[in-house]
Amino acid sequence: MSFKLFPLANTIADVEGFHCGGLHAGLKPQGLDLGFIYSDALCEVAAIFTTNRFQAAPLRHFQKRSITKTNFILANSKNANAMTGEKGIEDIEEILASLQEVFALHNPIMSSTGVIGVPLPKNKIIEAAKRFDLSAKEDLAFARAIMTTDTFEKRVGFEVVLEDGGSFHIAGIAKGAGMIDPAMATMLCFIATDAQVDATKAKELLQKKAETTFNAISVDGDRSTNDSVFLLANGRSETFDEEAFAFALEQVMHELALLIVKDGEGARKLVGFQIDGAKNAQEAKRAAKALTNSLLVKTALFGQDPNWGRIAATIGASGVECSEERLRIAFEDVVVFDKGTILFDAERERAAHEVMKKEEFTIYCDLGVGNGSFKAYGCDLGYEYVKINAEYRT
Amino acid sequence: MSFKLFPLANTIADVEGFHCGGLHAGLKPQGLDLGFIYSDALCEVAAIFTTNRFQAAPLRHFQKRSITKTNFILANSKNANAMTGEKGIEDIEEILASLQEVFALHNPIMSSTGVIGVPLPKNKIIEAAKRFDLSAKEDLAFARAIMTTDTFEKRVGFEVVLEDGGSFHIAGIAKGAGMIDPAMATMLCFIATDAQVDATKAKELLQKKAETTFNAISVDGDRSTNDSVFLLANGRSETFDEEAFAFALEQVMHELALLIVKDGEGARKLVGFQIDGAKNAQEAKRAAKALTNSLLVKTALFGQDPNWGRIAATIGASGVECSEERLRIAFEDVVVFDKGTILFDAERERAAHEVMKKEEFTIYCDLGVGNGSFKAYGCDLGYEYVKINAEYRT
Repeated sequence: MSFKLFPLANTIADVEGFHCGGLHAGLKPQGLDLGFIYSDALCEVAAIFTTNRFQAAPLRHFQKRSITKTNFILANSKNANAMTGEKGIEDIEEILASLQEVFALHNPIMSSTGVIGVPLPKNKIIEAAKRFDLSAKEDLAFARAIMTTDTFEKRVGFEVVLEDGGSFHIAGIAKGAGMIDPAMATMLCFIATDAQVDATKAKELLQKKAETTFNAISVDGDRSTNDSVFLLANGRSETFDEEAFAFALEQVMHELALLIVKDGEGARKLVGFQIDGAKNAQEAKRAAKALTNSLLVKTALFGQDPNWGRIAATIGASGVECSEERLRIAFEDVVVFDKGTILFDAERERAAHEVMKKEEFTIYCDLGVGNGSFKAYGCDLGYEYVKINAEYRT
Repeated sequence: MSFKLFPLANTIADVEGFHCGGLHAGLKPQGLDLGFIYSDALCEVAAIFTTNRFQAAPLRHFQKRSITKTNFILANSKNANAMTGEKGIEDIEEILASLQEVFALHNPIMSSTGVIGVPLPKNKIIEAAKRFDLSAKEDLAFARAIMTTDTFEKRVGFEVVLEDGGSFHIAGIAKGAGMIDPAMATMLCFIATDAQVDATKAKELLQKKAETTFNAISVDGDRSTNDSVFLLANGRSETFDEEAFAFALEQVMHELALLIVKDGEGARKLVGFQIDGAKNAQEAKRAAKALTNSLLVKTALFGQDPNWGRIAATIGASGVECSEERLRIAFEDVVVFDKGTILFDAERERAAHEVMKKEEFTIYCDLGVGNGSFKAYGCDLGYEYVKINAEYRT
């Protein structure tokens, strides 16, 4: 590699020309619930959205306006502004228009997360947003303002130094803990960079890198109406190297994706499901995602029970090409089933159980029928998930 | 209708010529774990099996032997004899051969349910099965012998009296509580009849009726390696009327399917998801099944929270044709969203919450884009599901 990555302490706030912050607008009973990202210089913007047919109003507003340049994103939690029809879009326009009377904004964007099917409390938002200090550099406040059932902030950033001279910054902030089964990227994610990249190239890279990052994780197999990844690039570094940029972008997206799974509602474990030897990459992905979504696998992870039969059954049910005579299943390096032979004895059960006690580990499944590989990331499902989701709204 | 149905008190035991029973073979620490169904007269037999690629040994044995006539089914719980390779089939052959030395059996069949990936304790089974009394009429004992995490026996049966004279009996016993997402019929089910129906017609009707019964239910979206529905017909009534038989068969399968959902692991509610107005029946089924499998919908059912946004989001994520402007969602008769308009106010929220307090209710979703309809049945997911499945094996 002809470049090096150095972590940023303040993520988006450390990216040249970017500002961010958050405040309490009264959408939640307490805590930050409204945030912004602002750039001194106009940004190229690229975005990818949920594949859910009921896209929320903010997503439809962005697409309707065909925005490719902006300097401002307004984001709120507690209310998704979804299933709110044309009224939802009109509310966004009213909010953003009122902000433009106060601040010098160009094509401002809005992004929302929270409960579906409740009209946006737009007056609270308008009143509060006027209090923003656009010179702020508070990435932690922004990260908190977009949290719903998240238990920690999700921030990642790097300075990328090119060997041939020049450097740029790239950083991302995300939220997400439930309704996570990215058929695209089930969460909100905002990435800011001062690299000199245009909107078209940014979108191409975003889509490509989403496949192995946000599209490879699952908390509960549900897909929200609001999933969005935004990438803002203000070009202030006057530097661009595609290889370095693509690598750093993937790194930011990968780390944020894993943070989302780690914060999976009620989850205590981050588990990788590495499928090898599938007929092709697509089938590898299908089997890997099936494992991340199986309730029986997820509850076995919670119970730290090396019940490999559930893993086999889930692969078999996923519809991919496979046979007992070719399948191999291992918990890290503990092989429990190998090409039709059950190796799972008392000793290996203990060893597999030890692997499962860890907070992070990988389950390897080789289907033995081809060269397709994919790694998906999931988490356990326990009492907390039920508690959080049975009590979320009422 | 030119026929009438009368419930049978002792289900399979009340069908002419059939006998059944169960005993403790020591597979479970205590309780019945091995059962049989025996017919005095040779039966036509039809079966449908799981679509899981890793079919368990009993399923492969049955298909390998191409059995179309039998007089005996041996069934055990606690061990699925799945992922056990050729050895699993050899074990079955050894068990059945040893029983044929004791009893006059023709093409005996074996059926298993329980943990996947553990060799069958065949000697225990051989020793215990010799103690069967083939003249027994103990349908409750058989129903108990095949239970795993089931909390109650699942038995249904009818005498069918034809207006033009003649009558026959049909009855079924099933087990199933978890790993229920029938891409076919995720459970074990044994149906016995003295109607005069041949194996080909029986299979045709079984497959047809499975679509709207066992294939319409879901507990957890997982699909086992052992799912089987067997239909044994010994012809003793010397009666057959296709319309009456098909109706009674569907009734038996429908009632058993609902009993399985009612006994869904940890479930307290039986919820129907009626989709109307879909592009076609296939899309209606896809949306209905997506609702039965959504963790966020299932936990909302558990919390009795009329969070209709999760229902909308799940339909939107299911990939079927739909739009906000045409969608209608109702909890029984309480409409909460109608063609883009949110009707969900405090009063309707209370009313919808009242509906959700019931043990059985239906959620109606009209997509407004076509004539496709389907009703699927699901249940809530609560702490008990996690408890049962995190602790099941260890």
